Amino acid sequence: MARHRFEPTRYSNVLATLEPVLAVADGDTVVTTTLDAAGRDRDGVQRAPRGNPMTGPFFVEGAEPGDALLVRIDRMTPIRATGWTFSVLAPNVVEPGAVARLPERREVEWAIDPQAGTARLADAGRELTVPLAPMIGCFGVAPRQGQAISTATSGEHGGNMDYRRFAPGTTAGFPVAVPGALFFLGDGHACQGDGEIVGTGIETAFEIEFTARLRKQAGFGWPRGETETDIFTVGNARPLDQALQHATTEMLRWLGQDFGLDATAASHLLGQAVRYDVANVFNPAYSVACRLAKRWLTRPEGTAGGLEGTG
Amino acid sequence: MARHRFEPTRYSNVLATLEPVLAVADGDTVVTTTLDAAGRDRDGVQRAPRGNPMTGPFFVEGAEPGDALLVRIDRMTPIRATGWTFSVLAPNVVEPGAVARLPERREVEWAIDPQAGTARLADAGRELTVPLAPMIGCFGVAPRQGQAISTATSGEHGGNMDYRRFAPGTTAGFPVAVPGALFFLGDGHACQGDGEIVGTGIETAFEIEFTARLRKQAGFGWPRGETETDIFTVGNARPLDQALQHATTEMLRWLGQDFGLDATAASHLLGQAVRYDVANVFNPAYSVACRLAKRWLTRPEGTAGGLEGTG
Amino acid sequence: MARHRFEPTRYSNVLATLEPVLAVADGDTVVTTTLDAAGRDRDGVQRAPRGNPMTGPFFVEGAEPGDALLVRIDRMTPIRATGWTFSVLAPNVVEPGAVARLPERREVEWAIDPQAGTARLADAGRELTVPLAPMIGCFGVAPRQGQAISTATSGEHGGNMDYRRFAPGTTAGFPVAVPGALFFLGDGHACQGDGEIVGTGIETAFEIEFTARLRKQAGFGWPRGETETDIFTVGNARPLDQALQHATTEMLRWLGQDFGLDATAASHLLGQAVRYDVANVFNPAYSVACRLAKRWLTRPEGTAGGLEGTG
Amino acid sequence: MARHRFEPTRYSNVLATLEPVLAVADGDTVVTTTLDAAGRDRDGVQRAPRGNPMTGPFFVEGAEPGDALLVRIDRMTPIRATGWTFSVLAPNVVEPGAVARLPERREVEWAIDPQAGTARLADAGRELTVPLAPMIGCFGVAPRQGQAISTATSGEHGGNMDYRRFAPGTTAGFPVAVPGALFFLGDGHACQGDGEIVGTGIETAFEIEFTARLRKQAGFGWPRGETETDIFTVGNARPLDQALQHATTEMLRWLGQDFGLDATAASHLLGQAVRYDVANVFNPAYSVACRLAKRWLTRPEGTAGGLEGTG
Repeated sequence: MARHRFEPTRYSNVLATLEPVLAVADGDTVVTTTLDAAGRDRDGVQRAPRGNPMTGPFFVEGAEPGDALLVRIDRMTPIRATGWTFSVLAPNVVEPGAVARLPERREVEWAIDPQAGTARLADAGRELTVPLAPMIGCFGVAPRQGQAISTATSGEHGGNMDYRRFAPGTTAGFPVAVPGALFFLGDGHACQGDGEIVGTGIETAFEIEFTARLRKQAGFGWPRGETETDIFTVGNARPLDQALQHATTEMLRWLGQDFGLDATAASHLLGQAVRYDVANVFNPAYSVACRLAKRWLTRPEGTAGGLEGTG
Repeated sequence: MARHRFEPTRYSNVLATLEPVLAVADGDTVVTTTLDAAGRDRDGVQRAPRGNPMTGPFFVEGAEPGDALLVRIDRMTPIRATGWTFSVLAPNVVEPGAVARLPERREVEWAIDPQAGTARLADAGRELTVPLAPMIGCFGVAPRQGQAISTATSGEHGGNMDYRRFAPGTTAGFPVAVPGALFFLGDGHACQGDGEIVGTGIETAFEIEFTARLRKQAGFGWPRGETETDIFTVGNARPLDQALQHATTEMLRWLGQDFGLDATAASHLLGQAVRYDVANVFNPAYSVACRLAKRWLTRPEGTAGGLEGTG
Repeated sequence: MARHRFEPTRYSNVLATLEPVLAVADGDTVVTTTLDAAGRDRDGVQRAPRGNPMTGPFFVEGAEPGDALLVRIDRMTPIRATGWTFSVLAPNVVEPGAVARLPERREVEWAIDPQAGTARLADAGRELTVPLAPMIGCFGVAPRQGQAISTATSGEHGGNMDYRRFAPGTTAGFPVAVPGALFFLGDGHACQGDGEIVGTGIETAFEIEFTARLRKQAGFGWPRGETETDIFTVGNARPLDQALQHATTEMLRWLGQDFGLDATAASHLLGQAVRYDVANVFNPAYSVACRLAKRWLTRPEGTAGGLEGTG
Repeated sequence: MARHRFEPTRYSNVLATLEPVLAVADGDTVVTTTLDAAGRDRDGVQRAPRGNPMTGPFFVEGAEPGDALLVRIDRMTPIRATGWTFSVLAPNVVEPGAVARLPERREVEWAIDPQAGTARLADAGRELTVPLAPMIGCFGVAPRQGQAISTATSGEHGGNMDYRRFAPGTTAGFPVAVPGALFFLGDGHACQGDGEIVGTGIETAFEIEFTARLRKQAGFGWPRGETETDIFTVGNARPLDQALQHATTEMLRWLGQDFGLDATAASHLLGQAVRYDVANVFNPAYSVACRLAKRWLTRPEGTAGGLEGTG
């Protein structure tokens, strides 16, 4: 269970089978840094092209296609005193007839105060202060079949899901498609509402600590996650309807695999207890999470936590 | 501020400009009963055709087109010891390729225990118990231009939104389209998850107490709501993307009308603080709520609560 | 086989179970007139509110729920020298990011010359002349269960489908939901491209001649049509994907009912031969036609034409 | 204007910046062969993994980002006596409630007779013969920013559009994103209906002859095409609504760039004359073509054909 400190010197704007930056073992912890979505570092220096440049990939020893990579987000510390957002709702989240009434989009700067735990914006004669709620906007593994998928979008491999529950304390799970999994991360947000409807969270540079584990032959089809209270699956597609279909189908699979619920039992439970989160409704693929409180779930005797399954 | 007790003898499966069953004044409270979605009463007797037969319409004196009808849901008491749900996820909420693997749909019966505050299902060798969380599945006002809109669907007038936050303690607001507003209600659920993904909540008969008020010339485009902690707007359309657009556009309108936020200020706030709920992803029109915690909102001096605006 | 001449004196902006304006027998022909979409008659006089006011309803003797009403469009003669269109693409048919660059919408007037068979527009320093290609934008039957459906939209009952193949020579078929079918028509277009993407065809007043027939217990789920060369089905919904699903499912039904093709045989044929038309991508419900050339079809011995089936 | 004969020995299942197989000059013609979608060659031998393995990439000398690559499809000759299709409609093209009634999917084999110009299927006791109508299912250029995009899907770079008008006689145009353009092609179909609704055309191996030309700094955003009678643009996305938005926006751009039509003039013309084709409604990205007859277009004096613009 080694603890690695890794300072990136190159970044990638695709998730792909690239030369690893570091090899880690199952159970190891990594402390590293990420650029903001625009490619700027802790000092505001442009270090990579815009569009969610990634730190990584990290090679996880022993990871094989069919396994799941489990990444616990141990800590996210903003390392710059400023973050930025766009100033206006994205045109695709309002009625087409209302688009022409939106003002033009600008980039605005927030002051981040880690001591106070807040981000503060002064813009257009008003102030707004929000509590820091760090999350990872874009992370995931190398996709299958030699694809190199832009960090603008997302898919079965993860990617730019912009889901606010991918936050410290959450364990994320990804279906491994290539040997070593090849894990990438970046695009940290100091805060973000549902849907990422202005097209950004509060974009800034982070120090992130995470722990990687493997679950062998796990049968994941889409990203999954586990918080202190909930399990969730994430579907990535347009329209939202299809993203929701993927997430729901993956939840059915999970409830069957690990909790012994057939389609009928899972339907009864989800019908009364499911929660859906609109993670993002901005990126080329939208993301919807299908979420269920863990108190509804009973695991067979002697088995581990949600994402770790019954192994 | 009279209190009416009204026992329905006829029901409607459309929201339309029909002969009122009762006239009430602004501020009056009504105690009445509703059939379940299948048209069955407290004794399980079929009293109206399937498909959300409505109690009403109630004529609210003084309501004119352009006004808003505000309906506070004061109380919902289940009045039958049983409720029913469908047994399997709707085919439109899973991947098309997974539909053929779903079992056939059945109606299953839950035991409702108001004392214990639970509903309990025994089906296919398993038991499931959920806490009661009553809500109104279908309610709203007569639509404009002589339309008679099926209680299967929803629109600007409200209707079959199946949103679990239309619950006791919530005030719902509807844009009035005809004199007297003509308010209908029914389709009570003892519980329901997000999305109504099995096609039902736990469907049963209720005694419902509500209080009707008017807000003159309110400028509502879509249904709105206010809970103890949140305000929300509801958009009804397919796909979810469009429902979300309506809800978000209506929230922009509200933040401008009552809270003095222009599109930029509203974007800054919603971008970091908005929550979306998938109310239903089953009916002919899907419903999405755009929700915002009231702690983010400062009302101009001396004005009333969220839905009541600055009047 | 009577021939009726009917001059309307009242109109309706909903398709609903209304008092008939005329009763006709199976096989009868009717010559009548329609207002333009804005409610203006042959002299440009406003005779009814905007939004596709309908002529009708016509009661067809013998029509019962479950039957199909077959309406052959015998002739459409424009009866005004002018028509109008909107001047700019609807915001929902361009990319959300391109909406703000569209100019503001105006109404523009075309000169209609029935002798020359053309419509001519002079606007913004340019001329455009198109051949007349008349079609019915909105027609259909009273919907089921007491609904009164706005002529802005469409559904299983027909309505505002804005499909350019609903033109002279075409026979349209509608599923009858109420006794007498109650047929409405209006919203004639002198011309229209696919999708009705400016939100209108060339809107004008018409004299229309049609012949109504019945097919008993026909099993239609959605509107159907037959031209000299093709049969088609029309699905009405949002998004286009769902409209296409309805149209395709109805075509499967038709190929099974009348042409003895099971799902496999129908799939083989449609896979290689189907054509889809985007009828409208503007109205609250979009319309997609699933179309098949009649040369692919062999009818069992001794049976009638496409829409008339094997009766 | 050289004429190259190129026999591939390796294939790719992504469109990406890969080592070119051949460099050609602007104006050169290439004769080459393609595998079927399953990776099988003229002898039915598996030569590459399933999923539209591509011949190429061809490096076109002088091509730079911002240019357009124009590819005239000179000839397509099927080189195997058999092709295959799936036997049943894809589940996403029928109503969700009808999916469970579809039979299971099989692969079926067609006999291709180039002499007779037909493909013939005998399956489940029936015969079906269709005329050959060859087309390219998947072709395009290397995408921008280091992406490697699966041949299962499509985007601005082209890819798996499955549009039946990408046929001999058509010139296709692609926005060049990398030096040399890097053109790939494959997935030939002996025939295909609109939408590729069984998930395939008649999949077989082809000899294809094409001629590559460049248009410098052309300003293409999406693939374009020109047939003897029409010009068209192709948008690739889900749902169909969004694919249609991309195609329509690209057509607006084209009409402005090359034909001097501003948004109003283009709206007037498209409103009455546009045709939409549903190219595919099966792949991860759906494809819609926005098509306009060339007879509507007047080019400024002394300029070349549609795709070649006013250069």
